[in-house]
Amino acid sequence: MLQRLVRVRAIAVAISSSSPKISSPYSIPPTFTRTLTFTLSRLSSTMASTDDSLRKSLADKHAAVEAQGNTVRALKAAGAPKPEIDAAIEALNALKLEKASIERSLLGGSETREAFRQAVVNTLERRLFYIPSFKIYRGVAGLFDYGPPGCAVKSNVLSFWRQHFVLEENMLEVDCPCVTPEIVLKASGHVDKFTDLMMKDEKTGTCYRADHLLKDFCNEKLQRDPTLSSYKIAELKHVLATLDDLSAEELGAKIRDYGIVAPETKNALSDPYPFNLMFQTSIGPSGLSPGFMRPETAQGIFVNFKDLYYYNGNKLPFAAAQIGQAFRNEISPRQGLLRVREFTLAEIEHFVDPQDKSHPKYAEVADLEFLMFPREQQMSGQSAKRILLRDAVSKGIVNNETLGYFIGRVYLFLTRLGIDSGRLRFRQHLANEMAHYAADCWDAEIECSYGWIECVGIADRSAYDLRAHSDKSGVPLVAHEKFSEPKEVEKLVITPVKKELGLAFKGNQRMVVEALEAMPEKEALDMKAALESKGEVEFQVCTLEKNVTIKKTMVTIQKEIKKEHQRVFTPSVIEPSFGIGRIIYCLFEHTFYTRPSKAGDEQLNVFSFPSLVAPIKCTVFPLVQNQKYEEVAKLISKSLTAAGISHKIDTTGTSIGKRYARTDELGVPFAITVDSTSSVTIRERDSKDQVRVDVEKAATVVKEVTEGHRTWEDVWLNFPHHSSTSADD
Amino acid sequence: MLQRLVRVRAIAVAISSSSPKISSPYSIPPTFTRTLTFTLSRLSSTMASTDDSLRKSLADKHAAVEAQGNTVRALKAAGAPKPEIDAAIEALNALKLEKASIERSLLGGSETREAFRQAVVNTLERRLFYIPSFKIYRGVAGLFDYGPPGCAVKSNVLSFWRQHFVLEENMLEVDCPCVTPEIVLKASGHVDKFTDLMMKDEKTGTCYRADHLLKDFCNEKLQRDPTLSSYKIAELKHVLATLDDLSAEELGAKIRDYGIVAPETKNALSDPYPFNLMFQTSIGPSGLSPGFMRPETAQGIFVNFKDLYYYNGNKLPFAAAQIGQAFRNEISPRQGLLRVREFTLAEIEHFVDPQDKSHPKYAEVADLEFLMFPREQQMSGQSAKRILLRDAVSKGIVNNETLGYFIGRVYLFLTRLGIDSGRLRFRQHLANEMAHYAADCWDAEIECSYGWIECVGIADRSAYDLRAHSDKSGVPLVAHEKFSEPKEVEKLVITPVKKELGLAFKGNQRMVVEALEAMPEKEALDMKAALESKGEVEFQVCTLEKNVTIKKTMVTIQKEIKKEHQRVFTPSVIEPSFGIGRIIYCLFEHTFYTRPSKAGDEQLNVFSFPSLVAPIKCTVFPLVQNQKYEEVAKLISKSLTAAGISHKIDTTGTSIGKRYARTDELGVPFAITVDSTSSVTIRERDSKDQVRVDVEKAATVVKEVTEGHRTWEDVWLNFPHHSSTSADD
Repeated sequence: MLQRLVRVRAIAVAISSSSPKISSPYSIPPTFTRTLTFTLSRLSSTMASTDDSLRKSLADKHAAVEAQGNTVRALKAAGAPKPEIDAAIEALNALKLEKASIERSLLGGSETREAFRQAVVNTLERRLFYIPSFKIYRGVAGLFDYGPPGCAVKSNVLSFWRQHFVLEENMLEVDCPCVTPEIVLKASGHVDKFTDLMMKDEKTGTCYRADHLLKDFCNEKLQRDPTLSSYKIAELKHVLATLDDLSAEELGAKIRDYGIVAPETKNALSDPYPFNLMFQTSIGPSGLSPGFMRPETAQGIFVNFKDLYYYNGNKLPFAAAQIGQAFRNEISPRQGLLRVREFTLAEIEHFVDPQDKSHPKYAEVADLEFLMFPREQQMSGQSAKRILLRDAVSKGIVNNETLGYFIGRVYLFLTRLGIDSGRLRFRQHLANEMAHYAADCWDAEIECSYGWIECVGIADRSAYDLRAHSDKSGVPLVAHEKFSEPKEVEKLVITPVKKELGLAFKGNQRMVVEALEAMPEKEALDMKAALESKGEVEFQVCTLEKNVTIKKTMVTIQKEIKKEHQRVFTPSVIEPSFGIGRIIYCLFEHTFYTRPSKAGDEQLNVFSFPSLVAPIKCTVFPLVQNQKYEEVAKLISKSLTAAGISHKIDTTGTSIGKRYARTDELGVPFAITVDSTSSVTIRERDSKDQVRVDVEKAATVVKEVTEGHRTWEDVWLNFPHHSSTSADD
Repeated sequence: MLQRLVRVRAIAVAISSSSPKISSPYSIPPTFTRTLTFTLSRLSSTMASTDDSLRKSLADKHAAVEAQGNTVRALKAAGAPKPEIDAAIEALNALKLEKASIERSLLGGSETREAFRQAVVNTLERRLFYIPSFKIYRGVAGLFDYGPPGCAVKSNVLSFWRQHFVLEENMLEVDCPCVTPEIVLKASGHVDKFTDLMMKDEKTGTCYRADHLLKDFCNEKLQRDPTLSSYKIAELKHVLATLDDLSAEELGAKIRDYGIVAPETKNALSDPYPFNLMFQTSIGPSGLSPGFMRPETAQGIFVNFKDLYYYNGNKLPFAAAQIGQAFRNEISPRQGLLRVREFTLAEIEHFVDPQDKSHPKYAEVADLEFLMFPREQQMSGQSAKRILLRDAVSKGIVNNETLGYFIGRVYLFLTRLGIDSGRLRFRQHLANEMAHYAADCWDAEIECSYGWIECVGIADRSAYDLRAHSDKSGVPLVAHEKFSEPKEVEKLVITPVKKELGLAFKGNQRMVVEALEAMPEKEALDMKAALESKGEVEFQVCTLEKNVTIKKTMVTIQKEIKKEHQRVFTPSVIEPSFGIGRIIYCLFEHTFYTRPSKAGDEQLNVFSFPSLVAPIKCTVFPLVQNQKYEEVAKLISKSLTAAGISHKIDTTGTSIGKRYARTDELGVPFAITVDSTSSVTIRERDSKDQVRVDVEKAATVVKEVTEGHRTWEDVWLNFPHHSSTSADD
C-alpha cells in the first residue's frame, strides 16, 4: 500500500496525466463563458469526446467495408452480372473513402491539438514567459526558468493564493528548508517507496520509465492503427486504465508480451526495477548524514504540528500552509512545463478533530455548482456532470463538510485566476487510487491540449502523517479536548504488591513490577482469571529473558471507574495541494486565442489574462515620438508606480498597431496612449474599445479597473468613447 | 585569484563576520532616532568602541600595576621604612582592584551582549518567528524554519523588495531552478574554488573549519586573557585581520604554532584541506550527470543574458533580478540565523555599458548622507563616518554613478524596513578582498550582537561573469552599440595567399591559413617586419604541432582603414546581492526592546516593526466576552479581510493588558478593542496611545495608517483620545 500512498501524497505532480486513466468518454457541456476564445478554445474541450465518437464511426465503417468486400467477392464468385458487380465495387470504394476520411479526422484531431499547443508554446517561449533552463549549455530536461512575464504571472498567482487561502482563513504559513534529513523522509515513506519503475536499454544504458514505454505503445497503437479490432481496442484501453496498478513483474511481463524494445535503438530492455525519485545529497562535510531535496512541502508542516497547535492556542481546527520548491528526479521528463524536475508547490494542511469535520464557513460555498466526476460515475462509464456542492456533501459523495469547503474554495480560486470552468472538473479517486487510510480524495483536473491534467489534489488523509512522525520521532503529535466536566470511564488497574514481589524476586523485583504494569488489557484479564482459578501463573518477563511464577498475593487486577478530564487524539488532516506550475500552464492555454489583424493578413496572438494575474497591468505609449507626449507618458508612469501598478513605457517609433499587438501577446489588459497633453486614451485588450480620460485621472482609472474596484463596463459608460481609425492595427 | 573571486561572489553569506576583519576601532556617532529602544539598543552600537577603549585602559592599568610592583620590590630591597612600603603596597592593591574592575567590564560587555541576544532569540523562538528545522528529530545544524510570524515578516520584506527594486526600476525578474548542472558552476568557478579549508579530529573524524579554529583561539585569548602583552595583542589582531588571506599551508602552520587541538577532545588535527561547500546531487537516473544545489541565484541570470537583452529591445542598461533559495553546505554552522545551510537570496544584475556607468535616476539619491567606511579610512585606522553620497561619487571614492545609485537605494530599502541608520554602514572592500576584475565593491553591514554583519554586497564585477559563460558555452554574451553613422577605424588585416600556401603545404594548407588569420596583432606586426627584412620566417602552427616556414609571397599584412557600423562589447555588471535572512535577523535585533509592565513586576518584550513589515497589522479584541462585542469584532474582521489587512481576532477571556502584551511581542502595530457596539478604540503599539473611532471607520483608519497613507500623528489629531485606565496593562 505504501507505494500507492506515497505516490498519492506528491499529488500535484506525481500522477501521470497525459492519457486518461479512465476509459469512459469525457463529456463537456457547451458552456463557454469566455466568448473571445473563439478560435481554439473549444478544440481541446471537445477533442476527447470527438475522438471516441470518431473511433466508433471508424469501427462501424471498417465493419461496413469488410461486409461490402465480402459482398463483392460473393458476387464475383457467384458470377453475377457485371453492372451488379460494378455497383457493389462502387459502393465499396465509397465506403473506403469515407473510412479514410474518418481516419484522417482521427489523426487530425491530435494534430490540431498539437498545432494549438505549438502556437501557445511558441508564443510563450518567444515572449520569454519561460525559457528552457541553462539554454546556452543545451539545457537540462525537465528544468525551466520563468522569464520576466512568466515570473510576474507566477508571483501574481502566489499573491492571490496567499490572499484567497492564507489571509481569508487565517492560516499559519511556514517556510521550511528544501534540504531534508533522511529520517524525516524515512518516516513519511518516501525513502522506501517514492519510486518509479525503470528499464534500461541493455546496450546503451539509456533509462526509460517502464509505464511510459507501455503507455506509449498502447496510445500509438490506438491512434495510428485504424485496423484494430474492437477486442484489441478494449484490451489496450484496459491496460492504459490499469497501468498504475501493475507490479514490476506484471509490467515487465506485459512489455515482454507486446515485444516492446528501446524506442531509439530497438535494443532489448532490462527488467523493470524501482528508481527513487528524490534528489539525494549529503548534509555537512562528514558524508555520514544523507539528505534529500524535499519531494513535497507537507512534511515540514507535519513535523511542526506540536508548535503550530500551541501557537494556535491548543485549538482545533486550524490550517498551516507552505509555498515552496519541491523536487522530483524524473527518469525522463516529458510534457514540457507539466512534468518537471523542480516545481513550486503550495500546500495546506488543515488539522481537524476526526469526530467533527464540519466547517464554519461551509455555507459560503455550498451553493456552488460545477463539474464533478464521482467514483461511481467513473466506474459505471458515465461522464462528469454539474453537481451542486451542497448535494454532493449531503448525499455523502464528498466525505465531509471540510473537504467540500476546500473543493469549493479551490473552484473559486482557479476560476478567478482565469481557468475556464467548462474545462475544470473535480474527479474523485477510485478506491484503488487511494491510500488505505485516506477517507476521500478529489483532484481538480484542468483540460488542456495534453488531456485532463491533475493540478490540485484535495485529500482527507486521516491521521496517517502525524502518526507516522509520532512513531518515528517518539514525540506525541496529538490534540487534547478538555471536557467541560470530567467523564467517568471504566479502566483496568494493575497494582503489583511490591513487598511480596520483593521477597520473591529480590534484585529482579523492579523488572517484574514493570512487566506486570505494562501488560495489555487482555493479558491482564487472562492473568486475573488464572490467579482466581489456580492461585498462580507463569509470566514471561522479557527484560529478564525468562518466565517467573506470579502468585495471587503478588498483584491485584481489577476494573475501576476513573474520572477523565480530557480526550487525547491524533487529528485528521485535510490536504489541498497545488501544483502551481501546472495551473499556470493550463491558464496559458485557456487564455490564449488568436484574431486576425486589421489588414487580415496575419493572425495575432492574445493572452486574455484577468488583471489579477496579468504580468503587466498597463502600457503607456506616446502616439508619436514627441517630447511633450513623452513627458506626459513619464508623468503617468510615475503615478502608476506610486499606485503600485506594474506597467511599461514604450517610446519606440513603431506603429501604434504593432505596439498594441505586442502587448496583447503579453496579455496586458490596458494600454494608455498619449495623443495630446491634456487627455489620453485607455484601450481594453479584448474588446479593443477605447475611452478618453484626462491625463490626471488616467492612473487612477487604471488602478481601479485592474484592482477590481471598477469594471471596464463602468468605465465605458462614464467616459467619452474614442474610435480609433488609423490608430489600432 | 579564483578562490577569492568565488568567495567574493557569494557575498551575502560567504564572508564571515563574527569578528571584524579590520583592526581599527569602530566609532558610531550617537544618532539614535528610534527613541523607544531605550534599554538595549545602544548596547551593541557602542560595544565595539567600548571594548577597544576598555582594552586600552586595561593595558595602561596593567603597566601601572607592574610599575608599582617594581616600586614595592625596590623599596623592600632598599630596606625602606615600613609606612612607606605599606603605602606603596596599598597603592598597588588599589591599582590591582581597578584593573580587576576593568577586566570584569571587558568580560561583562560580551556577556551583556549575549544576554541581549538571548532575550531576542528566546522571544523569537517562543513566538515561533522561527523554529529549528526538524526539531522533533533533534534538528539539523544550520537549517531553520520560519514559523507563522517570521514567514509573514519574510513575505513582507520580499514584497517590499519587489516594489522598491523590481517595480520602481522596471527590472526583468526571472525564476530559475535550484538544481544546476555541473558545467554552469564549472564556468563560474564554483566547482573548483567554492571551498572552505577543513581540518579533521584525527581520532573521531569530527570536521572543523580551519579558520574558525584559529579565529576562536585568537578571540578567546584576546577576551579571556587580560595579561596579554601589547605585542601579543597586536599579533593576534593581525592574525584575525588577515585570516581570509592565508593559504592552506599558512593556516596549518599558524595552527600548529599555537598548538591548537580539537576543541572537544583535545585530539590532534589533520592538515587543512579544501572542502567544496556546494550540496552535490545527480540529475536523472543514469548517475552520469552531476549537479549541485545553486550557491547563489546570479548564474541563472547570466546564462540568460542573451534572451533578456533581446527582451529589453537590445538596449542597455537594464537590470534583471531574482529571488530564490541558495544553498551552502557549511562545515559547522554557527551564529544561529546568520550562517545557515539554506537561505533566501535576492539578487540584481544591472548590465551596463562599461564606457558609460552613469545612471538616469542618480540625482534622486545623491543627497543622501549616511555612514560610509571607505578603503582608505580602514587602512589608516580611522572609523566609518557620515558622507554625502554625491561627494563619495564625485571624489571617486565610489567608483561610478550606477554603483552609487544602488548604494543609495539599498540604504533607503534597509532603513525603510526598520534598520537603524546609526547601526548601518557601507564598507568598501579592501584591495585584497576584491577579485582582480572587480572595479569596486561595497558591503552594507548592519551591527548586531554578533558584531558588524555583511547583509548586502554591492559590487561592480566588470565583464567577468558574462565572459566566463561566453567562453565555456561558446555563445557570445555581448551587446551592440549601433553607430548613428559608420566610424572609420584602422585595423590590421592579415590576408593569406591561398594559392602559394596550397603549393607549399598541400593538405595542411587550411591549418596554416587558420593559424595565420588567428595571429594576435603584435605577432602579426613582428612577422610583417621579419618578412620585409628577411623574406621568410619560422611560424608555429599549433594544430600541426610543428613550425613551418612562411615566405613573403604567402601572406600580406597591412593596416587598413575600415568602416564599422557598430561596437560589440561585453557589458559590465553591477550586482547588489541581498541576504534576506540576515537582514531579517538584524531587523529583529534592531526593533526589539523591553519596557516594564504597569505593575512594574516584569519586563515586557516589544518588536517595534514598521507596519510595512509587521507580520500582522492589527488585532481585534472584544474588551470582555460578550456576544454583541464579538459580532462587532467579526464585522470589523470582515472589513479588514476585504481591505487585505492581515489581522487576528482574540476572543479569549484573558485580560486586555495581557492580550496587548502578547501582540506587542509579535510586533503588531495596532489593536482595535471593541468596548461598545457603536465605537471602538484603536491603540498604537509603541506610544500605547488610544483613539476612539466609529465601528464603520475602524477598518479604513487601520488600512490608511498601515499602508502609509496616513500617519498615526494625524489620526491622533483627528479622533477623540481614549485614556485607558484599567484596560492597558
